[in-house]
Parts: sequence; C-alpha cells; structure tokens
Amino acid sequence: MSAEGVGFAVEATDGPARAGRLRLPHGTVRTPAFIPVGTQGTVKGVSPAELEAVGAEMILANAYHLYLRPGHELIAGLGGLHRFTGWDRPILTDSGGYQVFSLARINEVTDDGVWFQSHIDGSRHFITPELVIEIEAALGADVVMALDECPPGRTDRQTAARAVERTQVWLERCLSSFEGRWGPDQLLLPVVQGGTYLDLRLESLERARELRAWSGYGIGGLSVGEPKEEMFAVLAGLEPALPRESVRYLMGVGYPTDLLQAVRLGYDIFDCVAPTRNGRNGTAFTSEGTVNVKVAAWRDDGRPIEPSCGCWACTNYTRAYIRHLFVASELLGLRALSIHNLYFLTDLTRQARSAIEESRFESWVSEWLRRYEASG
Amino acid sequence: MSAEGVGFAVEATDGPARAGRLRLPHGTVRTPAFIPVGTQGTVKGVSPAELEAVGAEMILANAYHLYLRPGHELIAGLGGLHRFTGWDRPILTDSGGYQVFSLARINEVTDDGVWFQSHIDGSRHFITPELVIEIEAALGADVVMALDECPPGRTDRQTAARAVERTQVWLERCLSSFEGRWGPDQLLLPVVQGGTYLDLRLESLERARELRAWSGYGIGGLSVGEPKEEMFAVLAGLEPALPRESVRYLMGVGYPTDLLQAVRLGYDIFDCVAPTRNGRNGTAFTSEGTVNVKVAAWRDDGRPIEPSCGCWACTNYTRAYIRHLFVASELLGLRALSIHNLYFLTDLTRQARSAIEESRFESWVSEWLRRYEASG
Repeated sequence: MSAEGVGFAVEATDGPARAGRLRLPHGTVRTPAFIPVGTQGTVKGVSPAELEAVGAEMILANAYHLYLRPGHELIAGLGGLHRFTGWDRPILTDSGGYQVFSLARINEVTDDGVWFQSHIDGSRHFITPELVIEIEAALGADVVMALDECPPGRTDRQTAARAVERTQVWLERCLSSFEGRWGPDQLLLPVVQGGTYLDLRLESLERARELRAWSGYGIGGLSVGEPKEEMFAVLAGLEPALPRESVRYLMGVGYPTDLLQAVRLGYDIFDCVAPTRNGRNGTAFTSEGTVNVKVAAWRDDGRPIEPSCGCWACTNYTRAYIRHLFVASELLGLRALSIHNLYFLTDLTRQARSAIEESRFESWVSEWLRRYEASG
Repeated sequence: MSAEGVGFAVEATDGPARAGRLRLPHGTVRTPAFIPVGTQGTVKGVSPAELEAVGAEMILANAYHLYLRPGHELIAGLGGLHRFTGWDRPILTDSGGYQVFSLARINEVTDDGVWFQSHIDGSRHFITPELVIEIEAALGADVVMALDECPPGRTDRQTAARAVERTQVWLERCLSSFEGRWGPDQLLLPVVQGGTYLDLRLESLERARELRAWSGYGIGGLSVGEPKEEMFAVLAGLEPALPRESVRYLMGVGYPTDLLQAVRLGYDIFDCVAPTRNGRNGTAFTSEGTVNVKVAAWRDDGRPIEPSCGCWACTNYTRAYIRHLFVASELLGLRALSIHNLYFLTDLTRQARSAIEESRFESWVSEWLRRYEASG
C-alpha cells in the first residue's frame, strides 16, 4: 500500500485473527468489518445517516441490479452512485456474477460472457468482463469486484473446476479492461472460486496471484448451500495461502456465528443481507441468540431489544413497542429492527477488533459464542 | 385561557383566517396547524425525530385502535403514549367514534354506548363515553376528543339529527367522567356533528356550548363522502357561531386545497392520512399539484421532488433516485416521500400563518391555489 493511495494494511494480529485498515477514496474501513447490503442502491429501509450511526464504514451495491435498473449510465449521468444514493463513505460493488447465476435465467455461458434474461422483465442481456468493469467504473465504486462464475453449493468437481477456469479468464479480461484506471480512484479485486474443493480454491488463488499482487481477495461461492463444516474447512485450508498484506473478503457471509468463526480463521470483511432481511421478518439479533419480536413475553416488556445496545431502536424503544409495531404491521418496526440488527453486526466487528488489538480475541470470541449459542 | 395553563389564544387575524397558539402540557402548537396521523401510535414509516424535522408540533393517535391493540392499560403501564412512542410533543387522541362507525362491525348503538366487533379479530366490545375517557386518559393525550356518533356522508336528516342528539348525550357523560381531571394535564374537546345540515350543526354547537366554555371544538363527520361544496357551505355557515377564543379543529381534512380553503374560512387545525398514504402510494405533493413519482419524465431528472423544498428528501435526493426507489419497491422510497408530503403540508400551514400575521393571506392563498390547480 502506498503511503497515500488506496490499499490495505494489517495493524494487529491475534492468532490468525487480524485487525486492519482498508484505505479507499471515500474513506477508511477498519477491519474486521461488516458491510451492509444495499443491492439496489439502498440498504433496505435504512437511510445513509442511520448507516453512519450504526457505524457502517462501507456498503455493498450490486452491479447486476443497477445495470438492469435504473442503468449505470443514468447513475453516472447524475454524478455516480455516491451522489445518487447520498452515501458518501466507501461503496463496494459486487460484479453481479452471483446474481446472474442465481436470479437470472441463463441462456448461455461461454468464455466470452453470459447471455441471460433479466429477472425483472425477461429482457435479454449479454454480460462480459468488460461490461462489468464499465458498469462498476460508471457507478464510481471504491472497490470493484471482478466478474466470476459462481456455481451453486454442493457442485461437482468438474463444474467447480470449470468455474475456476472461467473466473480466471474473466479476471484477466477484467484486469485488461481496468488497466489505465488503476490509480487513486478504484480498487479491483479478484474472486477466488473452487467450490468446497480446497485444491481448486488454492489453484484459483494462485492463478489470480500470478497476474499481479492484489490489495485483496474476494472468496466467493461459499455459504450457497454447502454444509457449514465444508465452508469452514475450505476457509481454514485456504487461509495460509492468502497473502498477509491483502484484505480477505468473505462474500455473502454475515450471520453472527459464521462471521466470528471466519474472523477467527483470519478473514476480514463480510457482507450479508441477514440483518435487514431478519429485521423485516421480525427477527432480532441479540447477544443471547435470535428472537422473534412477536413472542408473547415481549408484550409488555419495558426493556430495549438488547439492554446493553447503543442503537437508535434500543435507545428509544421498548420491546413492547417493537412488538406492537410488528403485530400492527407498521413500517417503523421493520426500520427499527433493521437498524438494530445492522448495529448488532457492526458492533460485533468493533468488539472483535478491540479484542484482537488487545490480544484477547480467543477468550472473547469463545465466551461470546458460548453465550449466543446457549439459548439457541 | 389561564396565564400558565393549557388553552388557545388567537394572535392575529386576516379576514376570517386566524393565527393562534394552542398551549398544551407537552408543548405549544402554532395554528394553522397540520397534525400528522399516527393511528396506531406511529406515523406510518416516519420517526419522531423526522416528524420534528418536518415541523410537526402535534400528532394524532387513535383511541379505538390503541384500545384494541396493544391495549391502553399496557401503554399506561409503560409510562403512557408519549414514552411508548418516543414522541415528546403534544398528542391528540381521536375518540374512536369515527373508526367504530367506519371500520368495525356495529352490533348495536344505544345511548349507553356501542356494541361492536373488532376489525382485527372479530372480538366483541362495548364502548361507552366513560371507557373512551378512560382510554384517552390512560394514553396521556394532551387533547382528548369526546366520543361522538359519526354517520356516513350524504346521511339523511333524521339520522344526522339522531347522531347530534346521541353525540350530545355522550358529550355530557364524557364531561362527567372527565370532571376532576380538568387541570394542567389534558384538554377535553367536544365534536360538532350534524352532517351537511347547517341548522343541525348550529344546534350541535349550541348544545355543547351550553355545557361549558370549551377551549376548542372538533368539527366531525365532514369529508366523509359528501360533495365538497356542501362541506364548505357548512363550514362557512358554522363559523360565525364558533367562539373566537376557541380553537377550531376540522377533523380528517388535510388535502392542500381543502386545508387552505378551510383556513380561509376560519378553521385552525387539520389532520389527514393523505401525506403518508400518498407517500406510500408514490404520489408527491408539489406546489404545482400532485405527481406520480414513477412518471417517465423523472427517470433521469436530477432535481429534487420540489426544488424550493427544505425537507430531508428534497435536500438529499433527486427525482431520479426517488423514482428508482419506487420502481424497485424499496422501503426508503415510501419513507422519503412520506416525509416530503408531511413537510409539504406543515410548511403550507407555516406559510399560511406568516401570511395571516402579515395581513396578506388572501393574496397569498389565491396565488397559491391558482398555481397548484393550474396543473391539476
């Protein structure tokens, strides 16, 4: 990392767990970090000021969704995604690889790109590594993820190997397309694929590294249906091969226990729709596990969702009120609980960071997990 | 109005239009005033801090809804409605008369009270003037509306006359039940009924006045399906009989033009679900009329919803982004547009107030209405 440019630096370690700092054009992200998901250019129900208040230092947006609607050129014409959304801290854009393979109807996948039909209106599109870079550059993302092929969980070895191969071909083209853009503005990161096959993961990583030294690596295609043990086995096996000085972004993982287990294994950045999706569904994250807020015991409970929590919902509202809002189908309930859950996860990463800095991560995380899982 | 207690004072007039100040336990409401509707103890999608930011000085909650769910005793047990909802400015509670007659399945109406079935779960309830006062007292409302019988619009004379009679009987019982509670805490207001029959309206008002001098009068049973001209004819005819020194609350009326016409006729306070309901439906109030935010012209429009507006949505977002949020069914859209519409109406009453204070109300309102209606 240059003295003034974008890049990552590790500041403290405690076993494999790391505390670091990712410097980006729109600000610095302290790691471990949880990144709220704002797929369509908005974290569902939550405002930029509220995201800042929960302590989010970066959000994720999705190139696939924004390309389809409202269109990256439209956003670029209005000054880019930061200005469009009113979020002035860093933004990471996912390439849309995962979305193309999970949401759209795929017509044909070749090394050239993917023909697919929009999940919105069925319109036909051809997405290529070059187009993805064009989209993410137009959006003005701080972190640009390369296009990858993301096969489903429990995929067979041959499919996983083909995805690694294609992801590599696409990465090379993303890099060529991105060349000339390197500079203070945006950071391109590759995505490591390979399913649950450690040797394929290692190969995917190695081939990406042969192209250049990257500031970080996305680990994609996990938490997509495979058994948890297999995910953690891959993460544990891959970690020693990951460069110390690069940030490790575990894509799509963000339930509290998974996040902490991955921090324990040496991963730095996480995103997941869980806090907002659970928030809309009426499920609260608490230090003693998840709670359905409609539970009868909350009916006249005058305590906050989580008594020790410093979020807006816990500072202002009782469990009884939150429950009432959900029982009465009131929008403020979704919003309050989404904010609480986002705060819960960002605060969890802050606690993890402090524990790493103070060389007490293992005792802290064991105790935290014991308490969380005791009531599950 | 006593020097320190609750009550209303007119501060300026301009023709029949008035600027006043309603002093209440939780603060002062400057009139003309628009009161956002928070039926179930929350103004849909909007937080107390956002309500303060739009300039709302009082909100409305509904005794009927809160009695059914979560229960007034539960709310009282948690410290009252202000504490429950986190709104620390004045609250006016509607008695539920209108809701019982419009939402519930009525089983029997007598001078004793109303047997009805809950619109939520069909459970059977008997509501009386005494129960309504108990509910509103328990909620801790600043302004307590008396129970009234609210017949539908275009009701026949006999039905309207019977409703006036029953409303009077109930008012007497509300007053008896409220006696002893008079003091610095809560203000009880009667509701004038009588359909579109001016003589019945005058009779309803006169009979309420015979009971005592009230700090204000609710005008109920208008804007419930009758022709607009008939509503304004009743308001114009009733006005000279209303005491100068009392606040006039036109219940359930709050579309911009209706509100301004009523201010012009000498009415002071207004509530309506229009700003939030329209906000959720994607309809924006602007000084040039209402606009569907999904309109194609907004696709890449970089201007705020209303260029001169000072609300949170207009300060932060373009029409293109608001349109995108609605097209993509994103919650932030409902919220931003609800806030804009609430700001629009509260700002409208602030402008009306300034115009009255500066004796230029008639020219201001004519120009405003001309511009608003030109594009309708």
